[in-house]
Amino acid sequence: MQNFVYHSPTVIRFGEGEIAQLARHIPEGAKVLLTYGGGSIFQNGVYDQVKAALKGMPFGEFGGIEPNPRYETLMQAVALVRNEGFDFLLAVGGGSVLDGTKFIAAAIGFDGLDPWDILAKQSPVKAALPIGTVLTLPATGSETNGAAVITRGPDKLAFVSDKVKPRFAVLDPATTYSLPPRQVANGVVDAFVHVMEQYMTPSVAPVQDRFSEGLLLTLLEEGPKAMAKPLNYDVRANLMWAATMALNGIVGVGVAQDWSTHSLGHELTARFGIDHGRTLAIVLPAMLRVRKDAKRAKLLQFAERVFAVTGGSEEERIEGAIAKMESFFQSLDVPTRLRDYGVEESAIDGLVAALERKGMTALGEDGGVTLALSRQVFEAAY
Amino acid sequence: MQNFVYHSPTVIRFGEGEIAQLARHIPEGAKVLLTYGGGSIFQNGVYDQVKAALKGMPFGEFGGIEPNPRYETLMQAVALVRNEGFDFLLAVGGGSVLDGTKFIAAAIGFDGLDPWDILAKQSPVKAALPIGTVLTLPATGSETNGAAVITRGPDKLAFVSDKVKPRFAVLDPATTYSLPPRQVANGVVDAFVHVMEQYMTPSVAPVQDRFSEGLLLTLLEEGPKAMAKPLNYDVRANLMWAATMALNGIVGVGVAQDWSTHSLGHELTARFGIDHGRTLAIVLPAMLRVRKDAKRAKLLQFAERVFAVTGGSEEERIEGAIAKMESFFQSLDVPTRLRDYGVEESAIDGLVAALERKGMTALGEDGGVTLALSRQVFEAAY
Repeated sequence: MQNFVYHSPTVIRFGEGEIAQLARHIPEGAKVLLTYGGGSIFQNGVYDQVKAALKGMPFGEFGGIEPNPRYETLMQAVALVRNEGFDFLLAVGGGSVLDGTKFIAAAIGFDGLDPWDILAKQSPVKAALPIGTVLTLPATGSETNGAAVITRGPDKLAFVSDKVKPRFAVLDPATTYSLPPRQVANGVVDAFVHVMEQYMTPSVAPVQDRFSEGLLLTLLEEGPKAMAKPLNYDVRANLMWAATMALNGIVGVGVAQDWSTHSLGHELTARFGIDHGRTLAIVLPAMLRVRKDAKRAKLLQFAERVFAVTGGSEEERIEGAIAKMESFFQSLDVPTRLRDYGVEESAIDGLVAALERKGMTALGEDGGVTLALSRQVFEAAY
Repeated sequence: MQNFVYHSPTVIRFGEGEIAQLARHIPEGAKVLLTYGGGSIFQNGVYDQVKAALKGMPFGEFGGIEPNPRYETLMQAVALVRNEGFDFLLAVGGGSVLDGTKFIAAAIGFDGLDPWDILAKQSPVKAALPIGTVLTLPATGSETNGAAVITRGPDKLAFVSDKVKPRFAVLDPATTYSLPPRQVANGVVDAFVHVMEQYMTPSVAPVQDRFSEGLLLTLLEEGPKAMAKPLNYDVRANLMWAATMALNGIVGVGVAQDWSTHSLGHELTARFGIDHGRTLAIVLPAMLRVRKDAKRAKLLQFAERVFAVTGGSEEERIEGAIAKMESFFQSLDVPTRLRDYGVEESAIDGLVAALERKGMTALGEDGGVTLALSRQVFEAAY
């Protein structure tokens, strides 16, 4: 096991009815800015619940944080916070709202010229506004970690900082009842691939491996149930908890991590607007096929423990597991090929060029995902 | 899933060499009291490592915290802290040192007459000194949780408070190389039973169940290896991490918990001085046999997923799994019967009377462990 630091200070308040307790968790006298997305919180009643919970506490609002939150949008919020003196950010929504709010929090405290440097130059975040979160879409794990992905022009980049870890996360599974099936499916795939990025490396670590396998098995079981029975509380709760655990850091401590599937997927979102979760479903099967030698032992373990594939040669077991994973994504109505999204094969040159421009020439846990290999993956995913 | 709050603020610093970084994690200007046990830290070099890491930072010392730390001993430390004005406690040792230090921290801040009320009357802990920990014995999980078990006369009682959760926990697996086999074995059993207390109830929760099963499987695999190959770093690391995860709260969120095995075990330690881990190995198999109807579904799941027992009738599978668990404890040289420890069967009356005196008349996740049932368990464990 590699040395590691694990720190997850977010207070998680999980369960139906927890939103009503919100006011207790916000520092007294705080000037709160409520941040949200495209307005689904008005349709599903969460806005009303939050407003009722804040009980006359005055708060400002900044809505319209889009999926794949954009720098330009978020900088408007930064200006609002500066002008109005907000000192606590309450993010209500899914991963995009949470990620965007993290950037707002970090940009306020940024002491350089352009807060985009937090992403483009990985300038360290020295201070940030405190954040609380009310999660409405289980997927990204953003509610308890320090990571955020922000888009500017054709660039979709990530930063990670302890300073933007939320103070609290309210997770009420009932808020997810009204999610469109497409978002549920995307969330299941996203959480699944988050686990895979931390698990599918040559590292050997029994606790982390078994936690990962437990999350993958849970997503395999509960994902289809959530699609079939959207109003089953326990299914929604299990899915929400699995997605949080998938990326709060606990399964990735002390092991090598990959994340090349995310890097390639981000290009597909940035260039073609494909939903984040769907890009992962396109890239991961191809990535595992192309990289099967570097990941052989763990792929065999994955085949046995997650998909119960134990018969046949090593090659057959590995391909059997990858095919089952692909079928699982497809069973959620998530297509797994680039062509399914109307992308032309000729676009691969541009994707590879974009990776090159960003210096993403040695991705993966071992740097083995070169530009040539990324090209192979895009081609295999076509 | 039940509603829950999960908050694990302890910064975990895991790995060989982490002790050397200790000074960074202690607030500047703090007046540190180093607490420890019977002196093993002088033999295994940990004291020297800690002293070197504190680099000339002046610190006081309080040694001699015994296994099953005693109120009277700890109150001496409380007096020392008051007299000398220490404001940070650095606990170096195993669960007893950590638990004892939590009581010292809480007793200092106690505003009533007798700090024993924190245990006897479960008086709330309103303030406590900050604590840092350097763990040398993986077993109790005390390094990242708010629980402590303290002994006074014939009473061994527990308290739990967020206020005594350690600020940091340094976990260096290399510090465990020199542990006597008996302590390694006790630690494995202790961690195993911590998981069982949270897992073996009728609750159905796939993430928590699979995390629990993952820890049990890890302990089954790595425990014997640690006995056979005491200097294998990865084995020690896996064991240390499993023991921490077993009781940092993560496997027990949102589910019913039992803890009756611990309550009965505490009586065996208080009356006969049997090591804590060993008392659990005595009580748990008997408890599961006596309570098999209340825990049937989970026992069958445990049989299948942890011990791969899938053949035979339900009764046979349940008994098969319990017998395998018992054999596992015995394989670590941990006897599993009361008679093995020289206790007379006639002592059972006194054990039951002690439970009655403490009001422990309806233990377990459902209150089903009545005095009559506890008697049955002690008899079955004889």
